[in-house]
Amino acid sequence: WRSRQKNQIYQYVVLKWFLALLIGLLTGLVGFFNNMAVENIAGFKLLLTSELMLKHRYVLAFFTYAGCNMVLAAAAAAICAYIAPAAAGSGIPEVKAYLNGVDAYSILAPSTLLVKIFGSILGVSAGFVLGKEGPMVHTGACIANLLGQGGSRKYHLTWRWLRYFKNDRDRRDLITCGSAAGVAAAFRAPVGGVLFALEEAASWWRSALLWRTFFTTAVVAVVLRGLIEFCRSGKCGLFGKGGLIMFDVSESVATYSLPDLIAILVLGVIGGVFGSLFNFLVDKALRTYSIINERGAPFKILLTIIISLLTSCCSFGLPWLAHCTKCPADAVEQCPTVGRSGNYKNFQCPPGYYNGLASLFFNTNDDAIRNLFKAGTQDEFHMSSLFIFFTAIYCLGIITYGIAVPSGLFIPVILAGATYGRIVGTVLGSITDLDPGLFALLGAASFLGGTMRMTVSVCVILLELTNDLLMLPLVMLVLLISKSIADSFNKGVYDQIVVMKGLPYMEAHAEPYMRNLVAGDVVSGPLINFSGVERVGNIVHALRLTGHNGFPVVDEPPLSDSPELVGLVLRSHLLVLLNGKKFTKDRVRLPPQKVLAGFSPSDFGKSGLGKGLKLEDLEITDEEMEMYVDMHSIVNTSPYTVVETMSLAKAQVLFRALGLRHLCVVPKTPGRPPIVGILTRHDFMPEHIIGLLPHLKASKKAVSMTM
Amino acid sequence: WRSRQKNQIYQYVVLKWFLALLIGLLTGLVGFFNNMAVENIAGFKLLLTSELMLKHRYVLAFFTYAGCNMVLAAAAAAICAYIAPAAAGSGIPEVKAYLNGVDAYSILAPSTLLVKIFGSILGVSAGFVLGKEGPMVHTGACIANLLGQGGSRKYHLTWRWLRYFKNDRDRRDLITCGSAAGVAAAFRAPVGGVLFALEEAASWWRSALLWRTFFTTAVVAVVLRGLIEFCRSGKCGLFGKGGLIMFDVSESVATYSLPDLIAILVLGVIGGVFGSLFNFLVDKALRTYSIINERGAPFKILLTIIISLLTSCCSFGLPWLAHCTKCPADAVEQCPTVGRSGNYKNFQCPPGYYNGLASLFFNTNDDAIRNLFKAGTQDEFHMSSLFIFFTAIYCLGIITYGIAVPSGLFIPVILAGATYGRIVGTVLGSITDLDPGLFALLGAASFLGGTMRMTVSVCVILLELTNDLLMLPLVMLVLLISKSIADSFNKGVYDQIVVMKGLPYMEAHAEPYMRNLVAGDVVSGPLINFSGVERVGNIVHALRLTGHNGFPVVDEPPLSDSPELVGLVLRSHLLVLLNGKKFTKDRVRLPPQKVLAGFSPSDFGKSGLGKGLKLEDLEITDEEMEMYVDMHSIVNTSPYTVVETMSLAKAQVLFRALGLRHLCVVPKTPGRPPIVGILTRHDFMPEHIIGLLPHLKASKKAVSMTM
Repeated sequence: WRSRQKNQIYQYVVLKWFLALLIGLLTGLVGFFNNMAVENIAGFKLLLTSELMLKHRYVLAFFTYAGCNMVLAAAAAAICAYIAPAAAGSGIPEVKAYLNGVDAYSILAPSTLLVKIFGSILGVSAGFVLGKEGPMVHTGACIANLLGQGGSRKYHLTWRWLRYFKNDRDRRDLITCGSAAGVAAAFRAPVGGVLFALEEAASWWRSALLWRTFFTTAVVAVVLRGLIEFCRSGKCGLFGKGGLIMFDVSESVATYSLPDLIAILVLGVIGGVFGSLFNFLVDKALRTYSIINERGAPFKILLTIIISLLTSCCSFGLPWLAHCTKCPADAVEQCPTVGRSGNYKNFQCPPGYYNGLASLFFNTNDDAIRNLFKAGTQDEFHMSSLFIFFTAIYCLGIITYGIAVPSGLFIPVILAGATYGRIVGTVLGSITDLDPGLFALLGAASFLGGTMRMTVSVCVILLELTNDLLMLPLVMLVLLISKSIADSFNKGVYDQIVVMKGLPYMEAHAEPYMRNLVAGDVVSGPLINFSGVERVGNIVHALRLTGHNGFPVVDEPPLSDSPELVGLVLRSHLLVLLNGKKFTKDRVRLPPQKVLAGFSPSDFGKSGLGKGLKLEDLEITDEEMEMYVDMHSIVNTSPYTVVETMSLAKAQVLFRALGLRHLCVVPKTPGRPPIVGILTRHDFMPEHIIGLLPHLKASKKAVSMTM
Repeated sequence: WRSRQKNQIYQYVVLKWFLALLIGLLTGLVGFFNNMAVENIAGFKLLLTSELMLKHRYVLAFFTYAGCNMVLAAAAAAICAYIAPAAAGSGIPEVKAYLNGVDAYSILAPSTLLVKIFGSILGVSAGFVLGKEGPMVHTGACIANLLGQGGSRKYHLTWRWLRYFKNDRDRRDLITCGSAAGVAAAFRAPVGGVLFALEEAASWWRSALLWRTFFTTAVVAVVLRGLIEFCRSGKCGLFGKGGLIMFDVSESVATYSLPDLIAILVLGVIGGVFGSLFNFLVDKALRTYSIINERGAPFKILLTIIISLLTSCCSFGLPWLAHCTKCPADAVEQCPTVGRSGNYKNFQCPPGYYNGLASLFFNTNDDAIRNLFKAGTQDEFHMSSLFIFFTAIYCLGIITYGIAVPSGLFIPVILAGATYGRIVGTVLGSITDLDPGLFALLGAASFLGGTMRMTVSVCVILLELTNDLLMLPLVMLVLLISKSIADSFNKGVYDQIVVMKGLPYMEAHAEPYMRNLVAGDVVSGPLINFSGVERVGNIVHALRLTGHNGFPVVDEPPLSDSPELVGLVLRSHLLVLLNGKKFTKDRVRLPPQKVLAGFSPSDFGKSGLGKGLKLEDLEITDEEMEMYVDMHSIVNTSPYTVVETMSLAKAQVLFRALGLRHLCVVPKTPGRPPIVGILTRHDFMPEHIIGLLPHLKASKKAVSMTM
């Protein structure tokens, strides 16, 4: 890497931009395809049911509706359970963990990508209370990973010239771009996508990344815009105005006075409480489901089918509770609507009347949100309808998330929040002049703040969705309040899921009790040292026995005057070296040229996820086991070190800020062995520390605080 | 800090948010005041001159105009030269350097704040080709600093309860908020302000900061909106529609085809070239001016007056070159305008005619930009007028920046860029359908990209100014091209100024040649060690002799078994300790309680800029000089260390990522003195390294590259 020539650098820069372009293009295309497929499948299903309803064949309509949903749900669960279990759920926690440095092969594998795309289409079409936004982020990240590592060897799709990015940083950069592109594609919010990547996804951020991400999301925006322009002429089947959500509240009043602010304050506080309650219940539901899901794929599918049936019953059954409302005389739209989408669903009502609850339930989620956000529709929905819808969506949202289907959390939260906002707006209608559509938007913001704890990105995404800069201060106020309230109860939903999945995520700030510990306290286990020139058998034994990825190398006399820390050697590099079989009979140092002859620098580069050389691949004879190998040329001679008396909090800051994988702990006083131990990501995990030092548990609870 | 109780933490958090609110409020108010003052002063001046012109008293009009300008310019230069020289110029480079860790007292002093505000008002009113945007950023940062350190002791404005933030991080956070608030106030762009702080100003960024900055800028937006609403009823004198720039290009076509893209490509390339040329010439001009300015305040004022006269001559003289144009029959506005602002200035023309060049020159800069951005005005400006205006503004912009007046670069660059864009739009009018107003916007973007090399923030600021999301991709494309082109010539204008001012700014990435050096190579000078218990006289001598801020403490026998690095002690802490006079007759270790008795933790906290204890403040008798002091309790026992063989690039990454001030270099092999040296920010500066190792100079030039 260090010896690269100028033209190679240019090649590298151009390639990186080209990959960003490619990620944007592909994510945009997938996002559009996703929307078109959902609109067509769900549209066809709703059309079929509506026609049967018009003929008053209600039972048949229900079975058609529930049957379609069930088949779609079962298909989604089946591909998810059998092909790529990692594709279940939102995917945002996994992407977040990956960008934090957690390498897990399946998270971004090509099979996950495929299942994510098609599973998400099937899942959303099946009428579940779930969104396609989280899965789009995961999809974007998978696309970026696939491109960044030069295709997939398993599926014989490899491009040699794309294999330039053999290091963590470049991969992470691309995947950050991918996740931003996902948000941009899901919400048509390029700036929101960048801020999402910055605020929620990425753990390390450089200024250069800002620009590259923005470029990617702009490409997504251009692609989507072009395709929607193309579809406007009706060439995309049932894909109409809907699909990509783009809500319009611009008719609402943008001035506000003191009573309005009080109303918004109340909205924010309650929204924060509901949001954190949602997180709490989702966590409980996930823990329950994980017991069921662990029993195997058939159980996963069964669970999905049960939830699907429950959802179908709710969305078909509950509208019967609502009374028919007379169509308003001055309705701009057709009322009641006979076709697929639209504001006024007639459901069981006679001509000239519509069922408000069905307009919400018997629609795609996107259309329901659009109806709720709509300005100037004070009397469209009965209070009772809103209450029923809110309760149903809130509960369904909680029980839906854990099923084995790609499922985003944005849409359920926005849906429940918007309904809640409309309820508050209607209740407080007497003291405020704000439009219920605006209240719905603010309600959605309060729920998003309460569950996801994202702030700036949610704010900008909502701004871009509604295309109205003027309500920025209101949205911010609501987000600030609901996030603060919810933060005093529990963590954000994505952080909860990361913890629940056992992913070793490193927070940017150290826990308070870490200030009272020193690095030496948490170093554990017997340390395995290598000598600079080590017996092959010892190395193979150590590699087999432990799962460690880094080993300290210590030269002792006669190799040096006194014991001296040479540096750190990586498992992957050792495997490559052993594979080269540059062994010697005796313990002698060789000139580096001799050791490295036959290797190219890219051999030691980081290979794709799950593709590196494995210990089992090596074939070493018993005779070779007794020989020696000189590791000096592959040792990192200047690893980052801390003294054992450094506070653990300080070591954590170093570890996290530099994105390390191994941190050497050296003794404070001279005259002892030159290395005390190695800290890895796992050593900083609260569970590990409390396991080592159980007395901390009590004090930890006492000082846990919210900053 | 570590022992704070829970209620203190809450107090701290609440205070931090309250300060963010206060920064937003004050910056918003100052921003509004600034605009109102400029509009009124400049408006009065232009009104006076216009009236004389109408009476055909041209010579008197010129003298009135030039006289007003000169008086205003001289006043601005005088307060700047005599009260706060640091207030001259844009201020963005200084804020950037401060946030990078460069502590320089005068940068953010209260006097700088006052001069910046009034100097900027006077300078902009004086009709110079300069903006108030850069100074607003500096003003915001100064306000934040003033609040963060609890007022100014010099001016007897101190608030005890505001003195919570005795560490670098909190101060930097507040100042980041302040600079974002400044951009938000200058452009009414809250999101743009956040991104500006993120992309250009801050060197370290945390997710929490994102939210706090956004809160601050939203407060600014609310304050500005409220005040403008208030002014709409005409209570603010001549402050009309103008003032805060808010351009409207929404009438222009938002669809584009291939020829348009080619036109934009050409625009971007030439814009990048012009932008980097601008940087080059500004640098030359600054170096020339600094020779004049160094000769003292009268020379500074003289230089300002000369430039003012030159500007007056240009803006009054050049419009005579333009022919009178007949007013368009379908003009929405009054034509020609008799009053202050407006699109069609009559200047010397008979009624029914207007002078296009005067509409640009004989206006405030904001109004000129608004005229250029205006859509649907293809024929308003003659090609020759645009050419003359472009040449004049480009040259005036370059020669204006170095004068001793607060002067922003945004406005000259936008002005020149918009004119250039209109020229290109008119030339390529035959092959493209895009509006000249849109071309002006893209031209401005290309110049901004070419000079400032900011991308996302410029993009979002332009979006927020024009309130049109749809042209995002075009703006991005132009910025990407012009930045890439310009990057291949030279650095961004702010980086250039930072280098020219000799501020030790640390880049996020290491220079390529640093990879071939090791940390031990750049450690220089004799190292001054203290012993854990040191003679007072030695310490005072060392403090007096050197300017170092950190000293390694090494315990030697009999204090320890073998030489051992205890840690690092800071000059400021040593001064506090010496001031406490806990001396002993003999070289003995004392218990920490005894040493620290009489000190409170806040004594060791970082005091306000320029307010710490100084060596001259200490009164130590000769007898005390012979006594000993135990430093163990104030030593940082676990400083960050690197081995001497670590590559300098790697050490730089550590230094920069953690925002260190001192980095200890330890020997690789045991048995040597336990510390080799200390690296500070200055040791990483290219000038220092090349001074030590002159042979690098040639190779550095060869490998300098643009990533």
